[in-house]
Amino acid sequence: MDLVKLSEKYRLELLENVIPFWMECSPDKLHGGYFTCLDRRGRVYDTDKFIWLQGRQVWMFSTFYNKIARRQEWLDMALNGAHFMQKHGRDREGAWYFSLDRKGTPLVQPYNIFSDCFASLAFGQLYEATGTDDYAVIARETFNNILKRRDNPKGKYNKLVPGSRPMKNFGLPMILCNLALEIEDLLEPDLVAELTGDLVHEVMDVFYHQETGLILENVSPDGSFADCFEGRLLNPGHAIEAMWFIMDVATRINRHDLVEKAVQIILRTLEYSWDEEFGGIYYFLDIKGHPPQQLEWDQKLWWVHLETLISLLKGYRYTGDKKCLEWFSKVHDYTWERFPDPEAGEWFGYLNRRGEVYLPLKGGKWKGCFHVPRGLFQCWKVLESIAGSEGS
Amino acid sequence: MDLVKLSEKYRLELLENVIPFWMECSPDKLHGGYFTCLDRRGRVYDTDKFIWLQGRQVWMFSTFYNKIARRQEWLDMALNGAHFMQKHGRDREGAWYFSLDRKGTPLVQPYNIFSDCFASLAFGQLYEATGTDDYAVIARETFNNILKRRDNPKGKYNKLVPGSRPMKNFGLPMILCNLALEIEDLLEPDLVAELTGDLVHEVMDVFYHQETGLILENVSPDGSFADCFEGRLLNPGHAIEAMWFIMDVATRINRHDLVEKAVQIILRTLEYSWDEEFGGIYYFLDIKGHPPQQLEWDQKLWWVHLETLISLLKGYRYTGDKKCLEWFSKVHDYTWERFPDPEAGEWFGYLNRRGEVYLPLKGGKWKGCFHVPRGLFQCWKVLESIAGSEGS
Repeated sequence: MDLVKLSEKYRLELLENVIPFWMECSPDKLHGGYFTCLDRRGRVYDTDKFIWLQGRQVWMFSTFYNKIARRQEWLDMALNGAHFMQKHGRDREGAWYFSLDRKGTPLVQPYNIFSDCFASLAFGQLYEATGTDDYAVIARETFNNILKRRDNPKGKYNKLVPGSRPMKNFGLPMILCNLALEIEDLLEPDLVAELTGDLVHEVMDVFYHQETGLILENVSPDGSFADCFEGRLLNPGHAIEAMWFIMDVATRINRHDLVEKAVQIILRTLEYSWDEEFGGIYYFLDIKGHPPQQLEWDQKLWWVHLETLISLLKGYRYTGDKKCLEWFSKVHDYTWERFPDPEAGEWFGYLNRRGEVYLPLKGGKWKGCFHVPRGLFQCWKVLESIAGSEGS
Repeated sequence: MDLVKLSEKYRLELLENVIPFWMECSPDKLHGGYFTCLDRRGRVYDTDKFIWLQGRQVWMFSTFYNKIARRQEWLDMALNGAHFMQKHGRDREGAWYFSLDRKGTPLVQPYNIFSDCFASLAFGQLYEATGTDDYAVIARETFNNILKRRDNPKGKYNKLVPGSRPMKNFGLPMILCNLALEIEDLLEPDLVAELTGDLVHEVMDVFYHQETGLILENVSPDGSFADCFEGRLLNPGHAIEAMWFIMDVATRINRHDLVEKAVQIILRTLEYSWDEEFGGIYYFLDIKGHPPQQLEWDQKLWWVHLETLISLLKGYRYTGDKKCLEWFSKVHDYTWERFPDPEAGEWFGYLNRRGEVYLPLKGGKWKGCFHVPRGLFQCWKVLESIAGSEGS
């Protein structure tokens, strides 16, 4: 593999295809914020606004501004979403709604703590871009709210009978690994140190399933395996994505042992979750091989493949393990053959087991300006750094 | 078509394949109730108990006992589930939990009013089988609870912000059409008359989309179309299933105009929802042709096809419309070629767009002893009655 050429491929796809698509199709020039429900050609087919995706796009354009180039149009794009979020996004307690209508009227209550995670991520990065204190305050307050809600993130919307079979989910500790590092400068160093220790332990020990070397999506509060649908669930994309968050944290706190373990988990998860018949990584699996609840279990999703590319490259970058590069090549080929849409721009998100597009949207309730551009950006940068260090 | 032979085919499949499968594989002889998570060969892969499916199986075996033959083993089977439900199924307010563990410890709160619907259905039919007053009381009290919760079925678990975009869902009025008729003898005649009028209006006018002749899955409270994901959603299986409930009600209250309209809705829904490329009826569609939210939209589900067979036969039985019989033949062929599993018994539930099995389970969290046996029973009986009247 020519890593310089490859790096260039990711860079060009980001700068010449993906960013222009979102610049052109997503801003709501009348009411502010972004449209994310975009059909194959980028036409708006629904005007509701989902806080996950508003926050993610604010973060993404702030990141471009901070890390690629100080282009005013990118900052303006981030501010467009941030102003809309500031004005309409929170309830009286400061919790972020799940969704709003086009004008900003709240539709779905703050039952979902990931709205807060992406909002905090967004305003943290925007603060870095602008130095505006208000943004730092929002990022920090939102982060503190998340910590307060951590033990029962769904609050009164939690439908489990208390005490009968408590479970905890991998999503929150996983995302906090990334968020804590992203907004580190806004937090007390002691808090960051303590939290990072906790989170690394959660992700790498509590949710780690010793016997198989895989990460479980849900475990009992003490980390033990629960033999029920939720307890048996594997979400390979989540597990692999979390490993690049962990490698970033591990590098920050000088824990090379964690990097080694992360790479082993990535490789193990891929071996377990790769579809030998049609290629691609399954969306959900049951650790005992039973039928999963999720009817979409065998589908191939864009974000799973992009996050895997990032993790494999970081794994190779940090450990030099050739298996990472071999897998990268395989996942790269699969991904680039099926997800990009050179005809209409941006990438498809949803392929069936055979790798055929079954939903031609470019954005919706869950797909926005996030995994494709972040993945391209990360791969570009990591490839560049590998090429640089191998060339030197 | 030889309708006598066909009737026999449905009868034998019910009596010699499907009933024996559930008799053998589902009872929990240790703790009572039924296992419904059964793999292809009927082996239990999960022991949780879901009130929807417990209630449906009690109803199903009570129905066999009442309408096929007074076999003690069928009554015992119904009682096995009923005793478990009586002992463990309700919270202090008498609302039915969503799920319990194997021993009956409640797991998921009563957020789902369909648990109550199937419980009422179950105990109503069991009362008919046994004459035990306790069962009549449970059926009636549960029914009254449903009516009380009707305007906000999810109660405190409702995540919509009040007032911003209220919607109502087709599921409840649809199922109440069936339930009210099923437990008619337990209710005040005035209540039944008033309710039936209301429900028929809801199903046939409020959720009916004039311009397209289709049934919407969700509408604004005044019945108007809402241009959002929920408002654009079509659930063809629901719409078609509801039409046989309506035809049953219409026959009961002598409203032949309703039968005619129901048949038009069935045929229109089928034309709209039939997959011309691979055959079968789509699971979900968007009325404007936009991408649906549901990642399983293009899958072919057992219950959709069985309910369609019932509706087409009843439509033909009541109106003599030959189009019903033509469609029946087409859906019958599709269904019988793909869903039954002669090798391991019972029927598959989940096919991908191409009609291939992608989840080989015979039962799970949503598939139990219900649509397959009810569909076979209904088709057998309606075919018998058509053959009888045509032969006479």
